[in-house]
Amino acid sequence: MTDRTRIRRLPEKTRTDRAALDEVLDSALVAHVAIVDDGQPYALPMACARDGERLLVHGSTGSRLMRAMAAGAAVCVTVTHLDGLVLARSAFNSSMQYRSAMILGSARPVADQLEGLRVLTEHLIPGRWDILRAPTAKELAATMVLEIPLTQWSVKISDSPPEDEPEDLDAAVWAGVIPLTVNRGAAVPAPDLRFDLPAPDQP
Amino acid sequence: MTDRTRIRRLPEKTRTDRAALDEVLDSALVAHVAIVDDGQPYALPMACARDGERLLVHGSTGSRLMRAMAAGAAVCVTVTHLDGLVLARSAFNSSMQYRSAMILGSARPVADQLEGLRVLTEHLIPGRWDILRAPTAKELAATMVLEIPLTQWSVKISDSPPEDEPEDLDAAVWAGVIPLTVNRGAAVPAPDLRFDLPAPDQP
Repeated sequence: MTDRTRIRRLPEKTRTDRAALDEVLDSALVAHVAIVDDGQPYALPMACARDGERLLVHGSTGSRLMRAMAAGAAVCVTVTHLDGLVLARSAFNSSMQYRSAMILGSARPVADQLEGLRVLTEHLIPGRWDILRAPTAKELAATMVLEIPLTQWSVKISDSPPEDEPEDLDAAVWAGVIPLTVNRGAAVPAPDLRFDLPAPDQP
Repeated sequence: MTDRTRIRRLPEKTRTDRAALDEVLDSALVAHVAIVDDGQPYALPMACARDGERLLVHGSTGSRLMRAMAAGAAVCVTVTHLDGLVLARSAFNSSMQYRSAMILGSARPVADQLEGLRVLTEHLIPGRWDILRAPTAKELAATMVLEIPLTQWSVKISDSPPEDEPEDLDAAVWAGVIPLTVNRGAAVPAPDLRFDLPAPDQP
């Protein structure tokens, strides 16, 4: 953790253990990548997967912002899981439960593009890589896989019940947490599916 | 839509109708705000609520990045809903269903702070504002409510089944969509709740 990633707000929610970072990243399908182009910041949603000491993202070689990332522009990669709504006795103390990670640094193209694509695919849809055909040369040429090293990072985890002012505890309003979860629904077969096959099990 | 928000990638997913923007924003609890500070971009998760022609966010007056936002720094506010995993017959054509909105511009403090807080609270936890005590002067002084006008924006919606190459359709692998939804779980009362009250109904 450096000065730039030191958490100034709500430091009691800070987690400095690497296991916390890995848990937040490994639970994520999408990260928001901040990058500056011509003075304008952009926040771009991108599929992501952690691979050891790096976070992988991928995109089209035709994307201007992907090319700027590949060229080493400064980036911030943020992963946020919303875990609940925290209903306190006041609006001020109402908040959310969340797990959030922020990585600062710069991206670079991976040296092992096929392995990067395998890790991304297996993270997003476990078990899929081995049953799909290999990417073609044309597909590989159209795809950029970038890695951001996990060196400058911070993690904040908010998992507490409401924390109210003592004088608010006699207010006759319900207080507590409404949990939020992401659920996978029943698989919808493609209209052009030609085989009677079971949908893959999903975690 | 301006040159900066014109969508260059996957233009067939672009939606230019204002109703699409409103739907994406109104379904969101959190946005990711990109802002540049000292040359470093940041992507910050922030609770958000649309109020007519503006998007509201709020935070602490003690936050350096909130103060930079309030001072008119360029921002990008991105809202992303992940709606499904799209399992194609190739890794290359596998993708996600999503709804995403991006707003460019700059923020400014709202003229009507209390109304801004009411809209935010009611959006995040409908019905809550009227049963909670009013914010104190101290709480109001600690809270910044910012608005970003909905003038420069773009929306992308991906809601299609897998689109495979014709020559891949004979591959004997399942293809289709695994839907993703955000669900609200059973309410968890605060440990210090002093009243036997029902939890609020949640949408």
